[in-house]
Amino acid sequence: MTFGIDDLPVRDELRGKSPYGAPQLDVPVRLNTNENPYPLPEALVERIAERVREAARDLNRYPDRDAVELRTGLAAYLTHTSGHPLDVSNVWAANGSNEVIQQLLQAFGGPGRTAIGFEPSYSMHGLIARGTGTGWISGPRHDDFTIDVPAAEKAIAEHRPDVVFITTPNNPTGNAVPAETVLALHDAAQTAKPTMVVVDEAYIEFSHGASLLPLLDGRPHLVVSRTMSKAFGAAGLRLGYLAAHPAVVDAVQLVRLPYHLSAVTQATALAALEHTDTLLKYVEQLKAERDRLVAELRAIGYEVTESDANFVQFGRFADSHETWRQILDRGVLVRDNGVPGWLRVTAGTPQENDAFLDAVREVKKEQNT
Amino acid sequence: MTFGIDDLPVRDELRGKSPYGAPQLDVPVRLNTNENPYPLPEALVERIAERVREAARDLNRYPDRDAVELRTGLAAYLTHTSGHPLDVSNVWAANGSNEVIQQLLQAFGGPGRTAIGFEPSYSMHGLIARGTGTGWISGPRHDDFTIDVPAAEKAIAEHRPDVVFITTPNNPTGNAVPAETVLALHDAAQTAKPTMVVVDEAYIEFSHGASLLPLLDGRPHLVVSRTMSKAFGAAGLRLGYLAAHPAVVDAVQLVRLPYHLSAVTQATALAALEHTDTLLKYVEQLKAERDRLVAELRAIGYEVTESDANFVQFGRFADSHETWRQILDRGVLVRDNGVPGWLRVTAGTPQENDAFLDAVREVKKEQNT
Repeated sequence: MTFGIDDLPVRDELRGKSPYGAPQLDVPVRLNTNENPYPLPEALVERIAERVREAARDLNRYPDRDAVELRTGLAAYLTHTSGHPLDVSNVWAANGSNEVIQQLLQAFGGPGRTAIGFEPSYSMHGLIARGTGTGWISGPRHDDFTIDVPAAEKAIAEHRPDVVFITTPNNPTGNAVPAETVLALHDAAQTAKPTMVVVDEAYIEFSHGASLLPLLDGRPHLVVSRTMSKAFGAAGLRLGYLAAHPAVVDAVQLVRLPYHLSAVTQATALAALEHTDTLLKYVEQLKAERDRLVAELRAIGYEVTESDANFVQFGRFADSHETWRQILDRGVLVRDNGVPGWLRVTAGTPQENDAFLDAVREVKKEQNT
Repeated sequence: MTFGIDDLPVRDELRGKSPYGAPQLDVPVRLNTNENPYPLPEALVERIAERVREAARDLNRYPDRDAVELRTGLAAYLTHTSGHPLDVSNVWAANGSNEVIQQLLQAFGGPGRTAIGFEPSYSMHGLIARGTGTGWISGPRHDDFTIDVPAAEKAIAEHRPDVVFITTPNNPTGNAVPAETVLALHDAAQTAKPTMVVVDEAYIEFSHGASLLPLLDGRPHLVVSRTMSKAFGAAGLRLGYLAAHPAVVDAVQLVRLPYHLSAVTQATALAALEHTDTLLKYVEQLKAERDRLVAELRAIGYEVTESDANFVQFGRFADSHETWRQILDRGVLVRDNGVPGWLRVTAGTPQENDAFLDAVREVKKEQNT
């Protein structure tokens, strides 16, 4: 027997676990991780090279620990797109929204505390909770994947969580959460004690509706988390951020690792912000493609969850993993999120979506015969 | 009263705390954070721009989650410089050695477990322990800042920690830890139960002696952590890594945030690895400057701790903070680490070191009158 993980003194709750992550398979059409299919425009690629060259000349020095220029730029972007005025003191950035969430849980969750999410949702919320020693409560949804508000309020009253996660648009189901629902859960969460409410808006730029940023007004326990991975087409950059009351930004600074955000990451993100308008045009194309996917999947005969994201949940399948495999056999990789009966497909380029639709038409035919 | 951190439900142990970090002051000579004073050579700056440009063309995709090319390059560097053969399966990389240490503590420390370090040492070990819910034990040192081995063995026997930190060369004192000491503590730590021993070699390239990497052979509980911040002159890059048995690498993958290392970071680090030989020449210059600082500080009449790092601890002062201020008044920023009676100065360029030596000569004169 070779020496392995189980021979090491890893924490008990990690024993037998596998690392999180979608299979990275080399197939022609990859529609499994909600990436933006459009490469960055060449002008932006050049601007990134330019800003990184400049940053590299000072790379022997630690980066700006507080990422002030970047946070200022992100605040301007949020103000511009939401109409809700925010400044550097409202914004914090980290290596992906995963790290933002980890910092929030280190500050407001942790051992002896709990967080609740309404599942199925972004599974990293629960995984990061566990990774930070925060107890995890799985809250309820209706069969149509909307949040069951009375049941959610009851769960909050019963468990008195310290952190409430609401993902809108929700991943992997795609549906947006109405502002009234967020407000109801926020208020329910404040009844017993002050409680942080984290609204994960990773996919908000693809929504038919508006961001919930204006709800931050007068609600210092509300946090909106965002990412440049999707709308900015920069999944490889790992840049997540949050908007909240300045006191929340002060609080995460108590737990962030010093100099967590490299000078190269800051330079690249600043370059991308300069090209916001171009990147948001790609978002419009993707929204149209997403709507086409919803319509065509329904026309083929699939059930489809309403989508405000850059992906679509479709079903239902007696064996969703088997269907996932059948689609993969046709060169198209979608995501099996473990939601029984359903699969998730990312909106790709028109050509990629055509390839996907051809594949699922064939699979449908096969399954019907 | 404005709403502040204390009005938020932050964890009790964070209340009243301030964010970690040296003051970032704008002074002519900054010798306070052990940065490498030499900017990257222009050829490397160009190569970084080139590799990042290439990476930016694929930035809409998630980065290689396992950073295989980078880990392979780091393993080759370690093999080349230590003579101890390592490959990709032995190496893991993250955003600074701080994140490496955080991942190690998430896997092997955490709530209900403890870690020990021998203080004064790199204060982030204890801070990250606290941030991950790991109990922290401050182990003993002799007055000359060497580890008191019998006392350390006794502390290990008494507290039975889950993780042992040994920093060599030690920060902020500068002295290297002999291999026999590391072996003694490693063996002592295994007596009661399997225990991880983390040897932090952030400054090892500046040492008169050799890396302890060869000790990894046959010791699956030993971990060596490294960084590109110092010898590679890339503090702004935030690239830390570890070498260990492959099972340790498997274990940290259970707790790492998925896609934690951006494509831009991976590209920049790979470019820097291509220029290893040039960068190690700067290390030789810095070692000579470090030795000069030790000699001149002693000639001036200061007490100096033996240094194997790119910094020097000097004293003793009745009031080290007051002396820190007097040196700062002369345009030179050194570090007051809170070690009573001592200050730490980073080896800079010859000109910076001259400015520092002039400053402390003046201060000495003033204090003697």
